Amino acid sequence: MLRALQLAASPGVPLGPNPRVGCVLLAPDGTIVGEGYHHGAGNPHAEIEALKVAGDLARGATAVVTLEPCNHTGRTGPCSEALIEAGVAKVVVAQRDANPIAEGGLDTLAAAGVEVGHGLMADEARALNPAFTFAHEHARPYVTWKFATTLDGRSAAADGTSRWVSSPAARRDTHLLRALCDTMLVGTNTVEVDDPQLTVRGPDDRPLAHQPLRVVMGERDLDPDRRVFDTAAETLHLRTRDPLEALTSLYREHGRHHVFFEGGPTLAAAFLSAGVVDEVVTYVAPMLLGSGTAAVGDLGIPTISDALRLEITDVTVVGEGTEANVRLKLQPAKGDG
Amino acid sequence: MLRALQLAASPGVPLGPNPRVGCVLLAPDGTIVGEGYHHGAGNPHAEIEALKVAGDLARGATAVVTLEPCNHTGRTGPCSEALIEAGVAKVVVAQRDANPIAEGGLDTLAAAGVEVGHGLMADEARALNPAFTFAHEHARPYVTWKFATTLDGRSAAADGTSRWVSSPAARRDTHLLRALCDTMLVGTNTVEVDDPQLTVRGPDDRPLAHQPLRVVMGERDLDPDRRVFDTAAETLHLRTRDPLEALTSLYREHGRHHVFFEGGPTLAAAFLSAGVVDEVVTYVAPMLLGSGTAAVGDLGIPTISDALRLEITDVTVVGEGTEANVRLKLQPAKGDG
Ligand SMILES: NC(=O)c1ccc[n+]([C@@H]2O[C@H](COP(=O)([O-])OP(=O)(O)OC[C@H]3O[C@@H](n4cnc5c(N)ncnc54)[C@H](OP(=O)(O)O)[C@@H]3O)[C@@H](O)[C@H]2O)c1
Ligand SMILES: NC(=O)c1ccc[n+]([C@@H]2O[C@H](COP(=O)([O-])OP(=O)(O)OC[C@H]3O[C@@H](n4cnc5c(N)ncnc54)[C@H](OP(=O)(O)O)[C@@H]3O)[C@@H](O)[C@H]2O)c1
Repeated sequence: MLRALQLAASPGVPLGPNPRVGCVLLAPDGTIVGEGYHHGAGNPHAEIEALKVAGDLARGATAVVTLEPCNHTGRTGPCSEALIEAGVAKVVVAQRDANPIAEGGLDTLAAAGVEVGHGLMADEARALNPAFTFAHEHARPYVTWKFATTLDGRSAAADGTSRWVSSPAARRDTHLLRALCDTMLVGTNTVEVDDPQLTVRGPDDRPLAHQPLRVVMGERDLDPDRRVFDTAAETLHLRTRDPLEALTSLYREHGRHHVFFEGGPTLAAAFLSAGVVDEVVTYVAPMLLGSGTAAVGDLGIPTISDALRLEITDVTVVGEGTEANVRLKLQPAKGDG
Repeated sequence: MLRALQLAASPGVPLGPNPRVGCVLLAPDGTIVGEGYHHGAGNPHAEIEALKVAGDLARGATAVVTLEPCNHTGRTGPCSEALIEAGVAKVVVAQRDANPIAEGGLDTLAAAGVEVGHGLMADEARALNPAFTFAHEHARPYVTWKFATTLDGRSAAADGTSRWVSSPAARRDTHLLRALCDTMLVGTNTVEVDDPQLTVRGPDDRPLAHQPLRVVMGERDLDPDRRVFDTAAETLHLRTRDPLEALTSLYREHGRHHVFFEGGPTLAAAFLSAGVVDEVVTYVAPMLLGSGTAAVGDLGIPTISDALRLEITDVTVVGEGTEANVRLKLQPAKGDG
């Protein structure tokens, strides 16, 4: 299973929307007769890769897979059927498939007389695809809220200028985090005021080949000339003010698992109040403004004991010298959810 | 000189108002015939200690001292005279004395025919007593501004409650930093609203024997029953709104070298605008309020390019788990004053 997990985590595999999966086929004497991993959406699943390598040696073999083999026909046929046809005798999986439309693989295998087992290193397998796992279990994408702030909690100056609160090094770091998500989301007013393009650029400042879905949320009409509507990536305008409704639609209708949410303050307050912020990433810039837009809109919290409490999971200094920003990662404290 | 610096940095020596000084007496053949260091205000100076150890062996010896011997009669006689009387042949110092009322020791020694030298490891000697050095060179104390803030830059909730934005671990850490200063300063309104006692307590939560001077700044009359006026330490009410005037008076009339300034936001804005904040220490608590008192009052900064820029000098996580706060130390960026 360790080898299967390593295969799943092979470098170069794009994250999302498909899970990372690894598969090892073992002959009855324990020798490896096939290996494979999923190279990302549109490519064969890990099991199919491993079966191709093993050929006839798959008959009577044991398949060790990080995720329950799928049971549905997507861009590839169901893996459960392929394993049965190849004559595999036993299938051991780490994580059961949480995807409601793909689950049931083990049941199909057992019904065909294949010996099945699961649970071995399940936590490690879940950690391979945290957003995928979260999304299927909660029927909405995992939400990472990112904001840049001054030391005194401002995300823009009194005249509305906010370029650039964060340093160039922090902005480069943000692109690395954006690339880990399958969706980027902002409020309508940020599109009007800042006109961001919302693409992911590499270290050379060129857009990556694979771009997350861009989503703008809010009821107003928007000027189609805004940069977010250009041809650099797909864009969705969700005409709702209900965070849960927006997220549910992104999961159900667009198969999204991980939203990188970049504000602004008003929409951030709505997401926080709705309890749908799962992770916070903030870049604290070493500057003071003394006035300007607060980093978070009103949360309806009157007194200190009602404050929304988070737990720090990571503190990193990004950039050097005067370019240094402090990046904090946090998660809602247990019981505050 | 290294040995003299080590002596000066002996543990247990209180910091301020007197500088830490070390002295080594060497016989013509290079053997050490006397050593001493200053144990803090009211005790003999380092040179006097070393001379006592050396006795007659001081005649013809070389005195190696971290700071220029004093030239004035305070609670101890002038060290320059004592060295001359003991027949010391040569005096080598690291740092010239910046204190206008104590300086001139080397001139007195040279006039008496003693060979003098200075500058050896001067930077190391200055670093021994940074606030002392700063205060004499700028004719005002060094100012460390400390504030506690939420992730969204609030130092109190909408109803004025601010106990406790910072965690118990951060408050214990604050007491360690307070103990390094000789003065604590707050604005009149913080005394009215929060009624802090402004004492330094040890890890056992008992007040330390040696307490910094407590200073309240502002023009209004204050209720003498406020805790800051209790008998736990000396207290000064400076009836001015001019930060530089207050600091100059603390230096000239009260011999203060290091002010630990704890707000509130209004007075902090005045100090920042006057350019008299030399170091910033902030405890960022992992919580969000969405409203309440901003950590810093208006600085008259309209646009992002005019932001007051600082440089991060230290990032430390203080406390663990939900008690963890992020402590940032910063200094004004060069060119920002
Ligand atoms: N420092 C940073 O990290 C950062 C990031 C982003 C933006 N900013 C700054 O923030 C400012 C813009 O922020 P903003 O707060 O005005 O805009 P925003 O949060 O991007 O958008 C607010 C708009 O979203 C719509 N909306 C959707 N759902 C909502 C809900 N549940 N509650 C309330 N509104 C909802 C509303 O418009 P409809 O009428 O269309 O529904 C609302 O006016 C700019 O100055 C920008 O520079 C800073
Ligand atoms: N989180 C923290 O670290 C922290 C620290 C301290 C306080 N606080 C919170 O901050 C709030 C109190 O802060 P605050 O800003 O109202 O009070 P403050 O800054 O302590 O005091 C303001 C007062 O100082 C006097 N003052 C002296 N020099 C001044 C100048 N140059 N400019 C303006 N005023 C000057 C004025 O009163 P006169 O009329 O008497 O001259 C002014 O009203 C409380 O809610 C407290 O809990 C938080």
